[in-house]
Amino acid sequence: MTNFFTVGVIGAGRIGKIHIENLLSKIANVNLKNVADININDKLRQWAEEKGVPKLTTDAYEILNDPEIEIVIICSPTDTHAKYIQEAAKAKKHIFCEKPIDTDIMRIKETLSVVKETEVKLMVGFNRRFDRNFMRCHEAVASGQIGDPQIVKITSRDPAPPPIEYIKGSGGIFLDMTIHDWDMARFQVGSEVEEVYATGAVLIDPEIGKAGDIDTAVSVLKFKNGAIGIIDNTRQAVYGYDQRVEVFGSKGCVIADNEATNTVRIYTADCTNIDKIPYFFMERYMESYSTELKSFFECLRKNIEPNPNGEDGLQNVLVALAAQKSYEKNRPVKISEVEK
Amino acid sequence: MTNFFTVGVIGAGRIGKIHIENLLSKIANVNLKNVADININDKLRQWAEEKGVPKLTTDAYEILNDPEIEIVIICSPTDTHAKYIQEAAKAKKHIFCEKPIDTDIMRIKETLSVVKETEVKLMVGFNRRFDRNFMRCHEAVASGQIGDPQIVKITSRDPAPPPIEYIKGSGGIFLDMTIHDWDMARFQVGSEVEEVYATGAVLIDPEIGKAGDIDTAVSVLKFKNGAIGIIDNTRQAVYGYDQRVEVFGSKGCVIADNEATNTVRIYTADCTNIDKIPYFFMERYMESYSTELKSFFECLRKNIEPNPNGEDGLQNVLVALAAQKSYEKNRPVKISEVEK
Amino acid sequence: MTNFFTVGVIGAGRIGKIHIENLLSKIANVNLKNVADININDKLRQWAEEKGVPKLTTDAYEILNDPEIEIVIICSPTDTHAKYIQEAAKAKKHIFCEKPIDTDIMRIKETLSVVKETEVKLMVGFNRRFDRNFMRCHEAVASGQIGDPQIVKITSRDPAPPPIEYIKGSGGIFLDMTIHDWDMARFQVGSEVEEVYATGAVLIDPEIGKAGDIDTAVSVLKFKNGAIGIIDNTRQAVYGYDQRVEVFGSKGCVIADNEATNTVRIYTADCTNIDKIPYFFMERYMESYSTELKSFFECLRKNIEPNPNGEDGLQNVLVALAAQKSYEKNRPVKISEVEK
Amino acid sequence: MTNFFTVGVIGAGRIGKIHIENLLSKIANVNLKNVADININDKLRQWAEEKGVPKLTTDAYEILNDPEIEIVIICSPTDTHAKYIQEAAKAKKHIFCEKPIDTDIMRIKETLSVVKETEVKLMVGFNRRFDRNFMRCHEAVASGQIGDPQIVKITSRDPAPPPIEYIKGSGGIFLDMTIHDWDMARFQVGSEVEEVYATGAVLIDPEIGKAGDIDTAVSVLKFKNGAIGIIDNTRQAVYGYDQRVEVFGSKGCVIADNEATNTVRIYTADCTNIDKIPYFFMERYMESYSTELKSFFECLRKNIEPNPNGEDGLQNVLVALAAQKSYEKNRPVKISEVEK
Repeated sequence: MTNFFTVGVIGAGRIGKIHIENLLSKIANVNLKNVADININDKLRQWAEEKGVPKLTTDAYEILNDPEIEIVIICSPTDTHAKYIQEAAKAKKHIFCEKPIDTDIMRIKETLSVVKETEVKLMVGFNRRFDRNFMRCHEAVASGQIGDPQIVKITSRDPAPPPIEYIKGSGGIFLDMTIHDWDMARFQVGSEVEEVYATGAVLIDPEIGKAGDIDTAVSVLKFKNGAIGIIDNTRQAVYGYDQRVEVFGSKGCVIADNEATNTVRIYTADCTNIDKIPYFFMERYMESYSTELKSFFECLRKNIEPNPNGEDGLQNVLVALAAQKSYEKNRPVKISEVEK
Repeated sequence: MTNFFTVGVIGAGRIGKIHIENLLSKIANVNLKNVADININDKLRQWAEEKGVPKLTTDAYEILNDPEIEIVIICSPTDTHAKYIQEAAKAKKHIFCEKPIDTDIMRIKETLSVVKETEVKLMVGFNRRFDRNFMRCHEAVASGQIGDPQIVKITSRDPAPPPIEYIKGSGGIFLDMTIHDWDMARFQVGSEVEEVYATGAVLIDPEIGKAGDIDTAVSVLKFKNGAIGIIDNTRQAVYGYDQRVEVFGSKGCVIADNEATNTVRIYTADCTNIDKIPYFFMERYMESYSTELKSFFECLRKNIEPNPNGEDGLQNVLVALAAQKSYEKNRPVKISEVEK
Repeated sequence: MTNFFTVGVIGAGRIGKIHIENLLSKIANVNLKNVADININDKLRQWAEEKGVPKLTTDAYEILNDPEIEIVIICSPTDTHAKYIQEAAKAKKHIFCEKPIDTDIMRIKETLSVVKETEVKLMVGFNRRFDRNFMRCHEAVASGQIGDPQIVKITSRDPAPPPIEYIKGSGGIFLDMTIHDWDMARFQVGSEVEEVYATGAVLIDPEIGKAGDIDTAVSVLKFKNGAIGIIDNTRQAVYGYDQRVEVFGSKGCVIADNEATNTVRIYTADCTNIDKIPYFFMERYMESYSTELKSFFECLRKNIEPNPNGEDGLQNVLVALAAQKSYEKNRPVKISEVEK
Repeated sequence: MTNFFTVGVIGAGRIGKIHIENLLSKIANVNLKNVADININDKLRQWAEEKGVPKLTTDAYEILNDPEIEIVIICSPTDTHAKYIQEAAKAKKHIFCEKPIDTDIMRIKETLSVVKETEVKLMVGFNRRFDRNFMRCHEAVASGQIGDPQIVKITSRDPAPPPIEYIKGSGGIFLDMTIHDWDMARFQVGSEVEEVYATGAVLIDPEIGKAGDIDTAVSVLKFKNGAIGIIDNTRQAVYGYDQRVEVFGSKGCVIADNEATNTVRIYTADCTNIDKIPYFFMERYMESYSTELKSFFECLRKNIEPNPNGEDGLQNVLVALAAQKSYEKNRPVKISEVEK
C-alpha cells in the first residue's frame, strides 16, 4: 500500500462538509477525487468551488465503481450506510463511515461479515474518542495510572433540542444521542457492556413526548469486567454543550471537564464571572474530526485495525436497543436479550 | 421559651465528642450540664476535664430525668436512638439525634408519633446539609436560579473501607453510607423519592463480599416531581474523600466541587501538581457540625420545625431499604413497596 | 522549661481578642492568667466573662511584674511595643508581639539588643506566614522543588480603605499595609532585601492624598540572592480581599491563589458564576492566628528561635522605610541607605 | 476598493510561513500571488508546492513593483522593514508588517510619515492582541466592566532561551521579548506610557550576560492616565510558556490565565496532576495569527485604521528604549527622554 491515497466522499451534508474540508486542508498525502451527493444545488456547487473540491456527482456509484479511488468516506443518510459499506468493501475500498452503521442488528452483522470477508478496513465515526480531553482521559486509564476502572460517569447534554421532525425520525434518544456515550463508556472502560438499566422522562418539551420519545435520560451500565457506568442525558442544557467524562479506578480518578471558551475570570463587587462553555458540537468537537481522519489514514498506512471499528459500531447499537427496551419495560436488560 | 438552654448529651464517642466541643466553644447561650456514656474510662475522664465538661455519668436517665435539662443530644449507638428519643420526648425535652433514628420502619414511625404527640422538636443529624458548599448549592436551587431541578448527581466516596467487623454490623452500604446521599438528594431536589434502582459490586475487598455487603454502589432515584437522581458510592477512593453534588435544572446547573486542601498549584517541568483533597469527614465536614447545632438551637429559639427533622429521618431509611431490595432483586423498587 | 505555660496578654482590642480566644479554646497546655487593657468598659467586661477570661486589669505592669507569668502577648498600640518588649525581656518573660516592633530603626535595634541580652524568645506577629496556602508555597520553595527562587510576586489588596483618621496615623501605606508583604516576600525568597523601588498613586480617594499618603502602590525588590520581588497594593479591591503569592524559580513555579468562599459554580444561560472571595482578613486569615500562636508555643517548648523573630521585625521596617524614601525620591533606594 | 485582495508576501521564514498558510486556507477572498524570499532552496520550494503557493521569487521588488498586488505582508528581517514599508507605501499598497518597524526611533518616524503621506494603511504584527483570552480581557476593560484601569500585570515567560547568537543580534530583552508586553500593557490600559523603571539580572545562563543582555527582567510602567503597569519576563520557565494578563480597576479585576493543554485532572494517592501548559508561542498563539490577519483585511474592507498600527509600533519601541536606559542607569526614565 502506498502512502498516498485517492479518496471519494459520499454525502456532502453538514458532517460530510466537515470531512471534505479536513481532507482538503488538514490531511496530508490524500487526494480527494470525487464527492457524491444526491442533492447538488447552486449553494453546494459554490461551496465546492471555493473549497477546491475537484468534482461533484449525484451518483455514488461513480465513486464506488472508480478503480482509482481506494478509500470511501460515507456521510450519507443512515439508511444508506450498510449498502454503501458493502458495495465499497466488495470493490476492495477501505471505508470510513459515519455512525451508526445501521439501526438493525441483523443488517449490521451482515455488513460486518462482508467487511471481514473482503478484508478491507472500516472505521466508524465516533469522533468523540478523538477529543483531546477524552483521549487524555483514556490514556490515563489505559496506562494503568488509575488502576482498574470501577466507575465511569458521562455527562452528555445538548444545548437545545432538535426540531420535532428530527426527533420523530431519530430512532429515539438512546440511538440518536446516547449512542456517542455508549461508545465513550466502552472506550474508557475497555470492556463490553453486559446489562443496561435506562430510565428517563419528558421534562423539556411535551412535544417530544408526543413524538414517542423522552428528552431526559439516565442509564446505568454493567460491564463484563465489573465496572459500572452512569450516563445522564438531556436535550436542553441552557448553559451550553455539557460534555464531561470521569473514570474512577482502584488507583485514582481521572476527570475531563468541559472546554472553556476562554481562560478569563472577571471579579466584580457582585461575583466572579466566567464565560459560558462552548455552545455545541461544532465548537467543541471540530478538532476531533480532523484528528479522527488522521487516525484513520494512519491505520491504513500502518495496516492496523482502525479504532473504533465495525464491532464498536455494532456494540453501541446493541446497548442502545437494550437501553430502549429497559426504559420501556422499566427493568435492567441484558445485551444478550437484544442480540438474539 | 428563654434564649438560654440547658443541655445534656447522651453518648461521648467520636461524634458525641464533636458535638460536646461545639457546645462548649462555638454555641452561644447554651449550658452543657451533663454527659452520659456507658463507658467512662480514664481517657474519657481526662478529655472531659480538659474540655471543661462539668459532669460525666454512666446513666442516661440522669439526663432524661433531670427537669432542668431542656434539650438532649443523642449520640449513643443506633439501637438506643428510638428509645431515648421517646423517653426525652415524654419528658418534654427537645431532641437532636444522630442518624439514623432506627433501621426498622415501624419503630421509626412509632417514635415519630411520640414526638408528634409530645410536641417537642426533633432534628436528625444529617450534617452534610450544613456543609457550606452544599448549602450554597441548595440556595441556588431553592431560589429558582437554576429553574426546576431535573437531574441531581451525587458523588460520595470514602477514602478507605471501615473494618470488616464494622461492615458486618452496618446494615449494608445503602443504610450505612448512602443514607447521607439519600438525604442530600432529597434536600437538593426538594421532593420525595418514588422509586429507586440500585446496583453494585464487590470491587475493593472480597472480605466485604463475604460479609454479605458490597463496596461499590450506583443508585438511580425517581422523584415525585419528575427529577432523576444518580448516586455513586465506593468504600475506597485512594485520592481522598470525594464529596460532590450537582443539580441540573431547566435554567442552569449548579456544581459543588470538593474542598481543596489549599489553593496552591506547583508547576514543574513534568506537570502541574495540586495537593490531595481533604482525607475524610473529620477534615471535610467539621465545620458543618457546628453549623448544624447552631441551626438546631436557632429553630428552637424561633419555635420553628428543625430541618432535617424526623420525617427526613424516616424517608432516608425508606429509600435505603428500597435500594437494598432493588439491589437484591435487580429491579427498580417503589418506596411504597417497603413502606407497608 | 515545663510544657505548661502561664500567659498574660497586654491589649484587648480587635487583634488582642483574637489571640485571647485562641489561647482559651485552641491552644493546649496554656493558662491565660491576666489580660491588661487601658480601656476596660462594660462591653469588654461582658466579652471577657463569656469567653472565660479569668482576670482583667488596666495595669500592664500587673502582668509584667507577675513572676508566675512566663509569657507575654503584646497587642497594645504600636508605640508601646518597644517599651513592653523591653520590660518583659528584663523580667525574663518570652514575648509574642504584634507587628511592628516600632517605626523607628534605632528604637527597634535597642529593643532587640535587650531581647538578645536577656536571652528570652521573641516572635513578631506576621501571621500571614501561617496561612495554609502561603505555608505550602514556602514549603515548595524551601524543599527545592521549584529550584532557586528568581521572581516573587505578591498581590495584596484590601477590600476598602480604612477611615482617613486611621490613614493619618498609619505611618503610610508602606509601613502600614505593605509591611506584611515585605515579610511575605522575604519569607518566600529566603534572602534579605538589598534595594527597593517603590511607586504609587492616589487613585481611590483624594482624601488619602490630602492626608499625605497614597492608596495604590507598586514595589520592586532586589534580594541579596539575586531574586527580584514585585508587590502591588491597593486600598480598595471592590471584589474582596485579594491575597496571592507566586514564586518563580529555576525548576518551576508555585502559585497560591485566593481562598474560595465555597466551591460552587453556577452555570446559567448568561455565564458561569462563582461567589466572591472572602471579604477581609478576619475571613481569610482567622485560622493563621491560631496556627501562629501554636508555632510560638512549640518554639518555646523545643527551645528554638521563633519564626518570624525580632530580626524579621527589623528588616520589614527597614524595607518599608526604604520604600517610602524611594517613592518620595522616585529612585531605587538601598536598604543600607536607611539602616545607618 | 473591492472586497477581493491580491496579496504578496515578503519573507518566508517561520513567521512568514504562518501568514502564508493562513492566507491560503483561513482568509476568504484573498489571492496570494507571489512570495519573495532571498533564500529559496529545495525545502522551501517543496513546502510552497504542497501548500499551493503560486509563485516564489528571490526579488522583493517583483512584489513591490507589481501593480496588481494591493497588499504587502512584510515578514523579512527587521532591518528591511522600514525600507519595504516605505517602498510599498509609495507604491500605494497597504501593509501588514511584522514587529518591530525598526529599532531606531528616527527611522520609524520617517517611515510613519511616508505611510501618512501616501495614505495607505499599516498594521504592525502584535499578534497577542488577537489571542482570544487577551481580547476578552480587553473587552472587559474597554466596556467599563472593571471601571478605570489602575494596575495592569503581565507575566510573560519563555520556556527556554534562544541561541546565544540570536541573543547577540536581538537588541536586548526589552526590545526583543518585552516588546510584546509593552504593547499588551498599552492595549489593555488604553493609555500611553509616561515613565518606565526596569531592572533585571542574569539568572538563567551566564552566556547571556557575556553577550551583554539579561535573562530576567521586571519593569514598572507609569501611564498617562495614572495606571501602573508591572511586567515580569524570564527567558526560561521550565514548565512552559507562561502568558498571563491581569487588569485591576476601580470596579473589579479581570484575569486571563494560561491556556490549558487539556481539561483533564488526574487524582491519585499522591496528588492531583494537570498536564503542562502549552510549550511555546506556536502552541499558544497560532490561532491569534489568523485572527490578526482577518482583522487586518476587515479594516481594509471597512476602510478603518488597523489596530495595532504604526503609532503602536513606534510607542512600543520607545518604551523598550526607555526600559533599556532605565536598566542601565538604575533609575526611572521618562519616555520623553528617549523620544528626543
